[in-house]
Amino acid sequence: MTNPTAAMLVIGDEILSGRTRDANMHHLAGQLTEAGITLAEVRIVPDERDVIIAAVQALAAGYENVFSSGGIGPTHDDITADCMAAAFGQSIDVRDDARAILQAHYDKAGTEMNEARLRMARIPAQATLIDNPVSSAPGFTIENVHVMAGVPSVFTAMVASVLPTLTGGAPLLSKTLTVHRGEGDIAGPFGALAEAYPALSMGSYPFQRDGKYGANLVVRGHDAGMLDEAMSKLEEVFA
Amino acid sequence: MTNPTAAMLVIGDEILSGRTRDANMHHLAGQLTEAGITLAEVRIVPDERDVIIAAVQALAAGYENVFSSGGIGPTHDDITADCMAAAFGQSIDVRDDARAILQAHYDKAGTEMNEARLRMARIPAQATLIDNPVSSAPGFTIENVHVMAGVPSVFTAMVASVLPTLTGGAPLLSKTLTVHRGEGDIAGPFGALAEAYPALSMGSYPFQRDGKYGANLVVRGHDAGMLDEAMSKLEEVFA
Repeated sequence: MTNPTAAMLVIGDEILSGRTRDANMHHLAGQLTEAGITLAEVRIVPDERDVIIAAVQALAAGYENVFSSGGIGPTHDDITADCMAAAFGQSIDVRDDARAILQAHYDKAGTEMNEARLRMARIPAQATLIDNPVSSAPGFTIENVHVMAGVPSVFTAMVASVLPTLTGGAPLLSKTLTVHRGEGDIAGPFGALAEAYPALSMGSYPFQRDGKYGANLVVRGHDAGMLDEAMSKLEEVFA
Repeated sequence: MTNPTAAMLVIGDEILSGRTRDANMHHLAGQLTEAGITLAEVRIVPDERDVIIAAVQALAAGYENVFSSGGIGPTHDDITADCMAAAFGQSIDVRDDARAILQAHYDKAGTEMNEARLRMARIPAQATLIDNPVSSAPGFTIENVHVMAGVPSVFTAMVASVLPTLTGGAPLLSKTLTVHRGEGDIAGPFGALAEAYPALSMGSYPFQRDGKYGANLVVRGHDAGMLDEAMSKLEEVFA
């Protein structure tokens, strides 16, 4: 049983410069794991046209789903929609369906539509809109790429709009045992257990707390029964 | 004036599964920005040999420096050192210099060296060791790739060991103006200013707080005088 794969493309100068700490990746990773879709790669790239186009083409060819975040607002540095159209050879212009959604939103808020706001209705010709219940300006799905906003509250809402439309697999289950010993003592028996359960994935994530060494031993897999069995043995070994 | 470029490769199933939130990227991004090295791409990949090798080869060919985090401990899932050796066609084995560092550390701590701990002395033949003042097990530099631990305290210490050995450029300076208006109102005048200063990079990062829209307008560049001038005009426009 193989779960569908996904990649994420984060478009963000502000993350690469260290100004902002990304929050969307962690959210998406958790949602995909629950949905049984394997997040297999994340790339963070700057707001540069050629770089964005090359990255989205590579990821779209390599994985079943791609999720992008960032660069779909009204300002001059929001170039994602045009890059996506170029990446897939589609034309892009203000689309009536997107414009109607924005117009209704601004009418309700008593805000005037202007040239900048209208930019958010620029959608590639064959893309499908993604609902944005937070601030109305839609995302879109083009081929297998889901193009979403970078603002965390909007990103989260768009993920919730898209995920039910995708075919997932069995959720990836995981259990963790925290062991207060150095990894050098853990490695031998933990490695032996990992060899005994090739269908499970086992990882050791060390930490240092109050000057003492420890590690979180994480066992992951799709079979709940097998996971429980392996965890029992793990607890026995490190009791 | 062009600053040297860098990429980061995060090796981490635990981040892709959503279990852990990466902290190292944000730290490295800030450090590189201060050092005048442009972080141009980040990739996060799973603990899989072929994927790690392909990613490090691509990044090492595309950027002047590559920083990796994760996968250099003593447990069975720590495969980074072997992948790096394979990526650059070098042999790998326990090296005397690395073993001596570990032996001294364990002697002092009264801990026994064992097979698992000895794995941390496996270093590619032509690599240079990176000092680890926190827990002694060294990282290493192979060609233009700096291979470091994933534990944040160790990663941070290794970055501090490596950075002074690299040639940086002019630090990337940035100033931020927070404007409490919607981006739709900001976009026009902000875009015009960005056009007037092609040597500066200007980005708008919107937020929604207490139901109100706003944006952080960030201006970046290497010339402090030009940055101040542009910020004055920006403040005038949005006063």
